[in-house]
Amino acid sequence: MNLDAIFHPDSVAIIGASRTPGKIGYILTNNMLNSGFKGNIYPVNPGADEILGLKCYPSVLDIPNDVDLSVITIPSASVLQAAEECGKKGVKALVVISAGFKETGHEGSVLEQQLVEIGKRYGMRIQGPNCLGLVNTLTPLNLSFAVDMPRRGKIGFISQSGALGTAVLDWVIKENIGFHSFISLGNKADLDEIDFLEAMSEDDEVTVILLYLESIEEGRRFLEASTRIVKKKPIVILKGGTSSAGARAAGSHTGALVGSFLAYQTAFNKAGVILANSIEELFDYGLVFTEQPLPKGEGIALITNAGGPGILATDLSEKLGVKISSISSEVQGILRKNLPPASATGNPIDVLGDAKADRYAFALKEVVKDDGVNAIIVLLTPQAMTESLETAKNIVEMKSALNQKPILAVFMGGKTVEEATSYLMNNGVPCFDFPEKAIQAISAMYRYTRFLKLPVFSLKRFDDVNSTRVKTVINAARMDNRVVLLSTEAADLVEAYGIPVPQNKLAVNTDEAVEYAEKLGYPVVLRIVSPDILHKTDVGGVALNLNSSNDVRTAFDQMMTSVNKFVPHARIYGVMVYHMIPRGREMIIGMSKDLQFGPLLMFGLGGIYVNFLKDVSFRLAPLTDNEAGEMMEDTKAYTLLKGIRGEDPSDVSALKDMILRVSQLVIDFPEIVEMDINPVVVYKAEEGAYALDVKITLSK
Amino acid sequence: MNLDAIFHPDSVAIIGASRTPGKIGYILTNNMLNSGFKGNIYPVNPGADEILGLKCYPSVLDIPNDVDLSVITIPSASVLQAAEECGKKGVKALVVISAGFKETGHEGSVLEQQLVEIGKRYGMRIQGPNCLGLVNTLTPLNLSFAVDMPRRGKIGFISQSGALGTAVLDWVIKENIGFHSFISLGNKADLDEIDFLEAMSEDDEVTVILLYLESIEEGRRFLEASTRIVKKKPIVILKGGTSSAGARAAGSHTGALVGSFLAYQTAFNKAGVILANSIEELFDYGLVFTEQPLPKGEGIALITNAGGPGILATDLSEKLGVKISSISSEVQGILRKNLPPASATGNPIDVLGDAKADRYAFALKEVVKDDGVNAIIVLLTPQAMTESLETAKNIVEMKSALNQKPILAVFMGGKTVEEATSYLMNNGVPCFDFPEKAIQAISAMYRYTRFLKLPVFSLKRFDDVNSTRVKTVINAARMDNRVVLLSTEAADLVEAYGIPVPQNKLAVNTDEAVEYAEKLGYPVVLRIVSPDILHKTDVGGVALNLNSSNDVRTAFDQMMTSVNKFVPHARIYGVMVYHMIPRGREMIIGMSKDLQFGPLLMFGLGGIYVNFLKDVSFRLAPLTDNEAGEMMEDTKAYTLLKGIRGEDPSDVSALKDMILRVSQLVIDFPEIVEMDINPVVVYKAEEGAYALDVKITLSK
Repeated sequence: MNLDAIFHPDSVAIIGASRTPGKIGYILTNNMLNSGFKGNIYPVNPGADEILGLKCYPSVLDIPNDVDLSVITIPSASVLQAAEECGKKGVKALVVISAGFKETGHEGSVLEQQLVEIGKRYGMRIQGPNCLGLVNTLTPLNLSFAVDMPRRGKIGFISQSGALGTAVLDWVIKENIGFHSFISLGNKADLDEIDFLEAMSEDDEVTVILLYLESIEEGRRFLEASTRIVKKKPIVILKGGTSSAGARAAGSHTGALVGSFLAYQTAFNKAGVILANSIEELFDYGLVFTEQPLPKGEGIALITNAGGPGILATDLSEKLGVKISSISSEVQGILRKNLPPASATGNPIDVLGDAKADRYAFALKEVVKDDGVNAIIVLLTPQAMTESLETAKNIVEMKSALNQKPILAVFMGGKTVEEATSYLMNNGVPCFDFPEKAIQAISAMYRYTRFLKLPVFSLKRFDDVNSTRVKTVINAARMDNRVVLLSTEAADLVEAYGIPVPQNKLAVNTDEAVEYAEKLGYPVVLRIVSPDILHKTDVGGVALNLNSSNDVRTAFDQMMTSVNKFVPHARIYGVMVYHMIPRGREMIIGMSKDLQFGPLLMFGLGGIYVNFLKDVSFRLAPLTDNEAGEMMEDTKAYTLLKGIRGEDPSDVSALKDMILRVSQLVIDFPEIVEMDINPVVVYKAEEGAYALDVKITLSK
Repeated sequence: MNLDAIFHPDSVAIIGASRTPGKIGYILTNNMLNSGFKGNIYPVNPGADEILGLKCYPSVLDIPNDVDLSVITIPSASVLQAAEECGKKGVKALVVISAGFKETGHEGSVLEQQLVEIGKRYGMRIQGPNCLGLVNTLTPLNLSFAVDMPRRGKIGFISQSGALGTAVLDWVIKENIGFHSFISLGNKADLDEIDFLEAMSEDDEVTVILLYLESIEEGRRFLEASTRIVKKKPIVILKGGTSSAGARAAGSHTGALVGSFLAYQTAFNKAGVILANSIEELFDYGLVFTEQPLPKGEGIALITNAGGPGILATDLSEKLGVKISSISSEVQGILRKNLPPASATGNPIDVLGDAKADRYAFALKEVVKDDGVNAIIVLLTPQAMTESLETAKNIVEMKSALNQKPILAVFMGGKTVEEATSYLMNNGVPCFDFPEKAIQAISAMYRYTRFLKLPVFSLKRFDDVNSTRVKTVINAARMDNRVVLLSTEAADLVEAYGIPVPQNKLAVNTDEAVEYAEKLGYPVVLRIVSPDILHKTDVGGVALNLNSSNDVRTAFDQMMTSVNKFVPHARIYGVMVYHMIPRGREMIIGMSKDLQFGPLLMFGLGGIYVNFLKDVSFRLAPLTDNEAGEMMEDTKAYTLLKGIRGEDPSDVSALKDMILRVSQLVIDFPEIVEMDINPVVVYKAEEGAYALDVKITLSK
């Protein structure tokens, strides 16, 4: 995606420029002037001749030269005309700051649509409307409300909340974090997060892309793009609106459709996107990704001058699955020989409270030689003898000797360590004020590294499926004006995709029931077939363990009486007769279609347990063989399936097969919007699994 | 506990004072001189006449006046003599900075013990050794390595890591957080965290006590003290060494015994102590507790000028169980009438990006009137029109009108909001840089408030217990040199405490087994009785569902053959015969004794599920009726016990009774160090519960 007109314009028109300090049109003009922008800036305002020393034009059409980019900050009612003029002028892209569009209701939505159409007509891409502009330290340009620009760096930041972006710009300057660019998405009428992701992915000056997002409209497109981009550079996302209450707040804020957080989470995991839990985490991650190389292998070393911080770092490492290396006996020997006797040479390596810069440097120099150490965190507390600035300088000096092993610093304290912290930050060593943050950050690096190392798995496709049979079932339900399939239909449908179901027949009267029972072989089960009855057991709609024609006859009649009594108006299609299969472990395989991301598959412990233990895991279809395996391993029940304490292991390969077939089914038939196989009855290894009860709902 | 000599000494001797800048003896003398200490400072050093303008004495005995407190910072080999001299001089307390004691091994431990004995002989309390001193802004005094003192405040901070304390002192100055005092515990040879907790609890100038702890040696004493103190003021703890790796690090650091984190967590919960997860959280909590009143009821309001931060705050609120109030229609009406139409008057209340200070003030003034709003968080991002300092001033001005409702601020950004943030912090309004921190902090306030509101429950004591019978069983095992009770003994023992067990008999041969089976009534179960067989099923040691004398005879003989084959050297005490009880839900009740905190009870889903679902909860004995109830409610299985989807509810009151009886049993008999009732079979409401299999281990 070429968004050069936005990232690197040669000339910028500011439509709505103003001479009045405090006004947005003033702030933008002033910020552009102070940004070091090398091209031409054209203020546009019919009421002024000159703004901040720049010649001002009544309309963009009056500008004598070409204009690459127009930023528009006039009342929404006038935006269409301005956009039209930009189109005529040959402007390549628009940044629409003005509010008053989709976020205000129907009228605004119509206006927004018209704006998009003008853009399309003239081939102009549009950022916004209702956005807070952009910053680019490379070009450089500053079309934001933030007066100062962060120092030049390689972090790209895309935010769906403009104000949060502005606050962050202000904050990163204080924290000394380098930025490549900031993009405020606004209403995403034309350009959305995916377009900017693509643009930043193609820009070699960006090494990590951070996003604050409240919604993703085109989930599948996002998934495809992020999966591709993540292989080149890390993407870190903070997702606003994870709670149901938060989702409401997001809804009223942007008018966007906010999908459930679970689907987002599953999508991010699938793509290898790193999820941040707070704004600080987002930037801490950005910082380490942009300043440090990725660790080549597991195992970090902690070098500290105090026990407490080392302990806190170790605690969190364990919690987050970051391995603390065992220091080799060779390196430990050298440390023991050269450090004071009270030092700890294990990991954390405690160089003691009276360690000066040279002792830190010595420990660092030796520890880095250990092949089992793939990343280093240096922790420092200001004590009587501590030389924080010297220590910082030593760390920076050693960077080249680190052999591409990432190094992070934790300098705790306030004024005493301020200079040292700045020195580290200015010289490419991320420095944190508390050990927990460094561990969080290194853990994010490991999450990304591990993802990159995963082999590439291909999608599993089964050929032994019968699509025609599925279509026939679906058409029959459509003809009958139903979206919920009958249980016999549902069983038929999944069987067409190679999923084993107990042999069954739909009987419409007692005689048929007996006839089928005789054919299928005793014992049999009868189950009522009705689109209006959800909980069949509760209304006497299930009869188990019937061993003779007499049993079947009695059960059939009783079932009809009972169902008629409990749900007199239910449409009864008959009774499903099936051979009763032996007891096994009860699992569940389900699918619910997410509006943004499509079919979300679920696997877990079934039967009554699914409701209260919620021991389930999720993946987005379509699945690779590997994902189906992971899905099972994610559940606690997997321990049970593998066989615990003398019990036989279950047929996990039959389960995996079933998961993969469901995945293929819901991809092939997008009209299936919801399905549940509960229970899936699974037997001992090699003895298979059956879909005992299948519920399928079609789209309207 | 009177520790006035430490907190408020009239005179301080510095044993090991030095004229050499950089030396600890110099730093301490210099810091005391700069601290504003009003009493006398006596440097003690035989090699100097004068230090930093103060007359120096060769020994504490040479000081002409009384000395309240001596701080000792000379090599450990000379500490005992100095302490002895202090004793003779009538010094009231010692702060021993010197290292080289217990933390260095056996020799150091002996030295430390001798130091404690000197203290006892002379009635001198000792802080340390191996500590980094103390700071008190009230007295004021500074016997720490930190050059500057924090501003005066009401936070008391006790740290088991001295260096972490020093770093924090430095940091709180930067963050503008007020402090009452800082205590570095060191090796806790005499005074420990409980002593300082007590002292701070009695000091009205302390409103909140923060602790960084790596170990608690006297768990029960801690529990008793903290339970009492929490009713007066909040205690917040950051526990280092929560991981197994962290515990190792703690072990090598302080030589202290680190208990399992689970026991700590359970103890903190029982006492109402707030647990912090990071250093920053510890101080964020300290800040809000010390600066703001506690909320009177649930429900907070968020006032913001940007959607994003409001969404992030809402997300975390939901996650942490902080209720977002519904703003009353009356207040919403007023807001709607006076705020711009695009504002959101629900909660979060969005005053929009162009809000100046007056609009914030208006919203705040109205929202505070809402009875459903019991705490307020004001969020601000720096945008074009934002007046951050004015807004800060308005918030501070409104404090008195807030009617004791706590208010927190979140001013995001850097330089732009720096002045406003300082203004708020200096005027009693905690101000955070990110919304997540404010929500964490208010959530801690709510945790504390809810705890304070809990009614006082008294311990449950049963009278219908037979202690003599328990003693007889225990003695029999002792006589037999066993610490693991036989299953028949264990059943007997719990039955003596009123816990129902199936009627059973120990049969030593086939004939006895048949005889007992006839008496107990069929069906019966046989179970091997041997202290050497843990997993009885695996070796053929259990036979279920025996319906006749023939069945019993065959089963007995087969069992002996099988057991002899699998575990030929096992001591066989016979076979337990019991009437087979019907199937029910299988739960577990267990107890494991924690070294520091005593009997830790467990309740949860039993049978095979306990191993992989780990759906269990913990409480420290003895339990109140209420705690036993909570313990059950904490598990997911509780939903199952209450009866789901047409299933009958289980007899939860029988379960509760059993939990309470186990609690009483393990308190009455501290020699029981471990027990498991698994499964506890529970039936429908009013139908009771049985301890089906009981394992009990005694102390050696």
